[in-house]
Amino acid sequence: MEQSFLAYLRGRCRNLPQVTVGIGDDAAVIEPVVGQQIACTDQIIDGVDFLSAEHALADIGYKSMAINLSDVAAMGAVPTSALVTLALPKTNATRIAGEVYEGIFEAATTFGIAIAGGDISTYEGPLAIGVTLLGHVPTGGAWLRSGASVDEAILVSGAFGGSLAGRHLRPIPRIELASRLRELVDVTAAIDVSDGLSLDLDRLLAKSDVGCELNVDTIPIHEDAIEMSKTSGRTPFQHAWSDGEDFELILTMSQADANKVLSQDVGVRLSQIGKTTSRTGLWKLENGRHERLSPQGFTH
Amino acid sequence: MEQSFLAYLRGRCRNLPQVTVGIGDDAAVIEPVVGQQIACTDQIIDGVDFLSAEHALADIGYKSMAINLSDVAAMGAVPTSALVTLALPKTNATRIAGEVYEGIFEAATTFGIAIAGGDISTYEGPLAIGVTLLGHVPTGGAWLRSGASVDEAILVSGAFGGSLAGRHLRPIPRIELASRLRELVDVTAAIDVSDGLSLDLDRLLAKSDVGCELNVDTIPIHEDAIEMSKTSGRTPFQHAWSDGEDFELILTMSQADANKVLSQDVGVRLSQIGKTTSRTGLWKLENGRHERLSPQGFTH
Repeated sequence: MEQSFLAYLRGRCRNLPQVTVGIGDDAAVIEPVVGQQIACTDQIIDGVDFLSAEHALADIGYKSMAINLSDVAAMGAVPTSALVTLALPKTNATRIAGEVYEGIFEAATTFGIAIAGGDISTYEGPLAIGVTLLGHVPTGGAWLRSGASVDEAILVSGAFGGSLAGRHLRPIPRIELASRLRELVDVTAAIDVSDGLSLDLDRLLAKSDVGCELNVDTIPIHEDAIEMSKTSGRTPFQHAWSDGEDFELILTMSQADANKVLSQDVGVRLSQIGKTTSRTGLWKLENGRHERLSPQGFTH
Repeated sequence: MEQSFLAYLRGRCRNLPQVTVGIGDDAAVIEPVVGQQIACTDQIIDGVDFLSAEHALADIGYKSMAINLSDVAAMGAVPTSALVTLALPKTNATRIAGEVYEGIFEAATTFGIAIAGGDISTYEGPLAIGVTLLGHVPTGGAWLRSGASVDEAILVSGAFGGSLAGRHLRPIPRIELASRLRELVDVTAAIDVSDGLSLDLDRLLAKSDVGCELNVDTIPIHEDAIEMSKTSGRTPFQHAWSDGEDFELILTMSQADANKVLSQDVGVRLSQIGKTTSRTGLWKLENGRHERLSPQGFTH
């Protein structure tokens, strides 16, 4: 199937200025970018990361791009091009590839990304989609997990919990927010929430060698978490704290910068949930006493 | 297994100047490069592209890098960094990952490549290794398949046929040759031979909208092809013509440039096998008559 499907792909791929030579040569040729380059890769596999029997293949294709876009947003970077690897079950391979690519093209169009290349195989195994995303940081440096200092504000985008009710398939990677913030303030550290708010926050803090004091009442809880709590036996807060697949950003910055972005419309809800401290770990202050919180989420 | 194996990988990955931030953040940060960027991706899967029961996992890991390096060489580019995706069968996942990575590290060390990132999953399926390789073309433009003109010399590196006897696992990607040629001459078009000398030559010619007249006696036949012909029922030439997985380069350039590189030691055997013509297709001239040749090889 490869040759004919590649011909179809070449027809579908839009010509974008960042990719001079796309599918059809030994490698893609990408125009030089300004600033640091960013590269990340994530694969999702049927039966592990999604269930093809339950989810539309176009949604899964979209998600394979979105999870990588979320990583690029967490670096404060602009995505430019993607390479896509499909491992397809032998039965209905061409149909599956076509439907997956519908979602991939949708994400590529929405975020201005060129499909620069890829590889397609059929095999005795489940559908697996691997995306490598390339981008760049036009000015300044990439946002690392390790950049937070003591006494900085901790902000989050959006709201948390209950993503598995459906929105985990169609997350909106915070690419545009990242660009807005880069113009406005100095983000000192960032991470995207894939495995759970508390777990990913803990990872950022550990890399920065700081802790945090959270005002847990300010953690934005998604309505999906409230809905899910009605049947799950867990509180909305527990869902928000540990569910994962929110694909929102956790950001640190000076309190002055935080006040600046919180006082204006940046297109996405931002909330300050606490501040960094020299005492490591996650803590909440309640009735004048510090209580240690335990990070929870999905560990691979 | 992911967290502990990633910790092991971080320890094993050498720090190279081209990658500022490697494994352990949301994405890799790669220093700006001079000239055009190159990116390619190829996956190999147990049961499709190799047999883990027959081949050493370290060889397979090496090969997963080498096939991509060969693509980068065919663009006349310098490789800089790689992102590696492993899909591992659940049984013995950590051992398998470790052995595959031995070969990946070997190729990375040999060719000065930083392992910038990756992803690891375990699943109900065969071992699958996906490598995305990034590189750049320091000066001039990338060598495309489409760049050949009429009346140019067609050169090949190395010798062809019988690769499946063993050397297909340990090809030497022609990275160094590409750099030497870039200094010496203007390569007008290039492709690497993965699916068969005649088939890949035909692809290059088709992209360039030219044909060729071959002096078939000058096609370098590998000793593996001669050995294999003793039992295969095919001639050494047939093996050289169509076997594939040689991972040598086919190159076009002016006859003057060809004479220049053929008269000096460039570290690898180079042979002129013919010249490009305005009449499309593959032709040989025998006893004053043109005879059309049929491209053969492995089609996916």
